[in-house]
Amino acid sequence: MQIAVVLFDRFTALDAVGPYETLGRLPGADLVFVAEHRGPVRSDTGALALTADRTLEEVTRPDIVVVPGGPGQSAQMANETLLTWLRTADAASTWTTSVCTGSLLLAAAGLLRGRRATSHWLALDLLKEFGAQPVEERVVIADKYVTAAGVSAGIDMGLTLLGRIAGDEHAQAVQLLTEYDPQPPYDAGSPHKAPARLVEELRSGSRFSLT
Amino acid sequence: MQIAVVLFDRFTALDAVGPYETLGRLPGADLVFVAEHRGPVRSDTGALALTADRTLEEVTRPDIVVVPGGPGQSAQMANETLLTWLRTADAASTWTTSVCTGSLLLAAAGLLRGRRATSHWLALDLLKEFGAQPVEERVVIADKYVTAAGVSAGIDMGLTLLGRIAGDEHAQAVQLLTEYDPQPPYDAGSPHKAPARLVEELRSGSRFSLT
Repeated sequence: MQIAVVLFDRFTALDAVGPYETLGRLPGADLVFVAEHRGPVRSDTGALALTADRTLEEVTRPDIVVVPGGPGQSAQMANETLLTWLRTADAASTWTTSVCTGSLLLAAAGLLRGRRATSHWLALDLLKEFGAQPVEERVVIADKYVTAAGVSAGIDMGLTLLGRIAGDEHAQAVQLLTEYDPQPPYDAGSPHKAPARLVEELRSGSRFSLT
Repeated sequence: MQIAVVLFDRFTALDAVGPYETLGRLPGADLVFVAEHRGPVRSDTGALALTADRTLEEVTRPDIVVVPGGPGQSAQMANETLLTWLRTADAASTWTTSVCTGSLLLAAAGLLRGRRATSHWLALDLLKEFGAQPVEERVVIADKYVTAAGVSAGIDMGLTLLGRIAGDEHAQAVQLLTEYDPQPPYDAGSPHKAPARLVEELRSGSRFSLT
């Protein structure tokens, strides 16, 4: 089963690596990182580069498409090369998935019209502009479209989809292998749980530059 | 503050990317991936390559050292170039950290003697051979040595250390930014929670090849 994880300039690394580390452990998985051009693709912080081993042109019929998000997503919203590839790949895929603002790229390609979908909490409302129905859940499955919330949610998405494809037992084995028994030192991972001031600071962009 | 994340052939990608995505968002962080040679370093599955932007020789006094683990760790246990670098970097570091079996490399370098430390659950007992005291906790802080359990525990480690260095509020902001509100679809992330058969399959190596 071929899994294509799409890379683009200024993607968020964990968006891509969460599904890679979980879903990529499907029995017989052939996971490949793809981008417009082969070679290193820089993440949003600039400190990490992940190699695209194949071009989009070279991988046209993956069984599973994974689209990460990140600050670089906005520059891709009018990239017809990528959007056309997404439409073509989706036409043959078994599952089309995203993490974080990757769902906005699926939406821009016209793939989420009329469907329930999620995204990073800061971007969730934008899904409406493309006819999708924003849902505040960590992982949303609508037919073959699986969207995950922000960044770390790709791990939960990967395990969830792994369970659907390979069965609960295999997904549990991967959870055990990756020792995914989360114990965050704080309980601030959603806008409903974090201090209101932090939510405001992230919304206004005063703490982190997200563009 | 310079953070050096060490790469070596057949590392586990999430071990490195968890701390990168959290701890790397320290205000003013200068995070750099380092390895013996510059260029792409392949992960354990072979499907991912992360770029080492600097050689070990070029980064000799990082403030924070992060050592991931993975199946490739065992081949590094006798790599004197790496072990010597770890000792030298540690002599000047503020924090020396690991994820997963990265703690065995710190231990092999002689840095954990007499100290409490953790590792991937499958490797925890091996710490004893190097005079460390294995502790079954997700994140263990012993003086300036911070060790994390397997793979995904690097996210919890990164946030914990971020809180120590930059304060709870900043760590919470990063948790919110990465939407780290984990909702695993199963509760099988530790050997105490997973079905006993899976624990046995991972111990015997019958489900995944881990060497």
